[in-house]
Amino acid sequence: MGIRLDNLCRAVRDMQYAVRGPIVARAQELERQGRQVIYCNIGNPQALAQRPLTWVRQVLALAEYPEVLERAPGAFPADAVEAARTIARESGSGLGAYTESKGFLFVRQAVARFIQERDGIPSDPEAIYLTDGASKAAQAVLRLLIAGEKDGILIPVPQYPLYSATLTLFGGAPIPYQTDERADWGLSRQALEEAVAGAAARGVKARAIVVINPGNPTGAVLSEKDVGMVLDFARQHDLAILADEVYQENVWRAGDRFVSFAGAQARRGDREVALFSFHSTSKGFLGECGHRGGYVECRNVPADVLEELTKHQSVALCSNSVGQIVTYLMVRPPRAGEPSFAVYDRERREIQDSLRRRAAIVERGLNAVEGIRCNPVAGAMYAFPRIQLPPGVTDGQWCLALLEETGICVVPGSGFGQADGTWHFRTTILPPLDQIETVVGRIAEFHRKFLSRPQK
Amino acid sequence: MGIRLDNLCRAVRDMQYAVRGPIVARAQELERQGRQVIYCNIGNPQALAQRPLTWVRQVLALAEYPEVLERAPGAFPADAVEAARTIARESGSGLGAYTESKGFLFVRQAVARFIQERDGIPSDPEAIYLTDGASKAAQAVLRLLIAGEKDGILIPVPQYPLYSATLTLFGGAPIPYQTDERADWGLSRQALEEAVAGAAARGVKARAIVVINPGNPTGAVLSEKDVGMVLDFARQHDLAILADEVYQENVWRAGDRFVSFAGAQARRGDREVALFSFHSTSKGFLGECGHRGGYVECRNVPADVLEELTKHQSVALCSNSVGQIVTYLMVRPPRAGEPSFAVYDRERREIQDSLRRRAAIVERGLNAVEGIRCNPVAGAMYAFPRIQLPPGVTDGQWCLALLEETGICVVPGSGFGQADGTWHFRTTILPPLDQIETVVGRIAEFHRKFLSRPQK
Repeated sequence: MGIRLDNLCRAVRDMQYAVRGPIVARAQELERQGRQVIYCNIGNPQALAQRPLTWVRQVLALAEYPEVLERAPGAFPADAVEAARTIARESGSGLGAYTESKGFLFVRQAVARFIQERDGIPSDPEAIYLTDGASKAAQAVLRLLIAGEKDGILIPVPQYPLYSATLTLFGGAPIPYQTDERADWGLSRQALEEAVAGAAARGVKARAIVVINPGNPTGAVLSEKDVGMVLDFARQHDLAILADEVYQENVWRAGDRFVSFAGAQARRGDREVALFSFHSTSKGFLGECGHRGGYVECRNVPADVLEELTKHQSVALCSNSVGQIVTYLMVRPPRAGEPSFAVYDRERREIQDSLRRRAAIVERGLNAVEGIRCNPVAGAMYAFPRIQLPPGVTDGQWCLALLEETGICVVPGSGFGQADGTWHFRTTILPPLDQIETVVGRIAEFHRKFLSRPQK
Repeated sequence: MGIRLDNLCRAVRDMQYAVRGPIVARAQELERQGRQVIYCNIGNPQALAQRPLTWVRQVLALAEYPEVLERAPGAFPADAVEAARTIARESGSGLGAYTESKGFLFVRQAVARFIQERDGIPSDPEAIYLTDGASKAAQAVLRLLIAGEKDGILIPVPQYPLYSATLTLFGGAPIPYQTDERADWGLSRQALEEAVAGAAARGVKARAIVVINPGNPTGAVLSEKDVGMVLDFARQHDLAILADEVYQENVWRAGDRFVSFAGAQARRGDREVALFSFHSTSKGFLGECGHRGGYVECRNVPADVLEELTKHQSVALCSNSVGQIVTYLMVRPPRAGEPSFAVYDRERREIQDSLRRRAAIVERGLNAVEGIRCNPVAGAMYAFPRIQLPPGVTDGQWCLALLEETGICVVPGSGFGQADGTWHFRTTILPPLDQIETVVGRIAEFHRKFLSRPQK
């Protein structure tokens, strides 16, 4: 029968992933034809001129090629040299050998200390898995949890399509729960209960809930109360929590702060709800997407279940060693008084200040356009504005027209999920400060023209 | 119901992966207790003192941190600097941004040129996918091909357990085909036909055949005739071929040479059989396992099928950028006349010569032991000797006792598959030259004592 589209794995064919979907393919086509494209489809900071942190890259260069020190003694700050020596010593064989399936022990220990410092609670390095970005960690956990097509996973609407695509691939049942656009994409217990009840009516048993905080694509930041509500809900329904916390450093709105699920759980004295918390080197202010570093910390998960996760990870041996080291450098930054601190701190502040300003520009600029309404970009790297469209026009068509006419590549709301009868798009806030006003201005101008033209 | 072992995904629980299984777990336990362990369980050269190639690491250091040139002008050879500049230019954003889902185009183009030079045939960069090691590439292709539990994949006996584990995970049907230990683990058309007929009798439709050449764990190297036979067989039964060619640089026996499936297919004028060819940066003489570089080249695969593979890869965005660059440096080494050539060539020869000598030492040493018989280690990095054991004793028990008494960690034949009533183990040939005689001697001494002791 050969290999034909119609005899391939159905789940792969059914998967959809809009962040790299047809609109992006069209953008690449236009670029090959010589058009300038501004990619606002994906949170990929270094593709939009964000520079890597000197600290991270100095240590990586030293770890890859320690002999550079003989050739250029004094070319690196002492703490970068010391970090590279630690990596050489603790890894045993440097970056060129397979690591443990879970990842380097010393990196997992550093992650555990980072969590302890952040949340004031102990963390077990043996329950931490280093992965090729957080996406792979989320996929591994979902693979473990989904035993059959009646196993349901609660996912927000709108959501990051990693989750819907992975559920399709693994044959699990998505249980969408609505966030409230009129309340800044807020969570409500009622929406969660309705989702579980609706699933039960279809014979689907909820097993876990995915929460993305700060929100992708919504930009919403959860309060301690929100997080506590989810913990209560999860305990009552015996659900695991998948806490996608990759944007934990990206909180922009004054008064908001990141509340980790692990910390909130500890403060409530809850030791029951199984919690998988994901973090990544791709976001925050590192933006080291290409290095594919990430981790999942597992809490309240039985040891024999963790063993299955370890076995799952072992089949492809280990995640990439460099991504593991970038994770190490993320959780173990230079401290005040150390030689690299001043440069690190300046670079960090510049990136964070600039992202904060860009979030405000995008939010304000889009809200100034008639027919576009954008909730506060309180966190993360995205705005997910609602757009008014003429009858019969979809947000996919709008995004395609925007791309063709302005070269700006954004993703339609339909790729993330949205309430029936509403249209949105997701844009990153990542174009550099000197371009972001132009981007917002072009979107505004495009939308005004789009609304005024006769629709086919 | 919470998360318990008994309600997890059945396929994950059923998976077995002996290369990192219970014997390795016991080895790590012994090591934590202070015992010295020699890990011969896995082809992980740099964990056993093989040094990375200077060329690879110099370019990586420059690509991670181009500013090192300002700090250490003249510390790097001109061609390494040039390679880093090419990477910076062609990647657009260096190593810190997500790449295309398939991987950097310029690396895929370099892989295509490498295949063209190796086989004298054109190769399409758009049909090449850069992956986190070859394991992930094989998993992606198998994911696509397995549509249901009656879809069968032919896998050799013995095989590398990536394949059996992945078939278990994806719910496909393994169709084991026997290799002939008495004929140096040779292939026969008869064994392949028997396997397909046996599968058909169980209602299983063969969709693809996995061939590992040079062989893991067998060390066998296929001739042009063998490869042609498989191509004929695949065409007749309308099978795709998964050619695991990660050991293509590891051919040790005089008179043998690596024959690629792509090259053999072209020489036969066959343009029908779908061929997936895997390669890796982890083996050969680079041994860059930790960097997780690898690729699959797809031939005679319809464009709409490739699009599904691209979508599958896009959900976790891309493979790690550094692994992609190591792949680039593997397929685009320094050439005669370039500044880095002399060092590169010396390092390459030293590693290859040493591996060749070690292969011979292992083969000869093991064959000198009564009750052990080892086929020629013609290629790859392993010996898979047959061992005579007293009735009631398994190779798993033998390997565990070997570990406890000598600190040598090898993997039982049962982890790879073997003919009923036979026992084997797989050992790598990777301990350094000054240790390999000792390792072989200890195995010999252990086996003599093991046979002479009263069995429980």
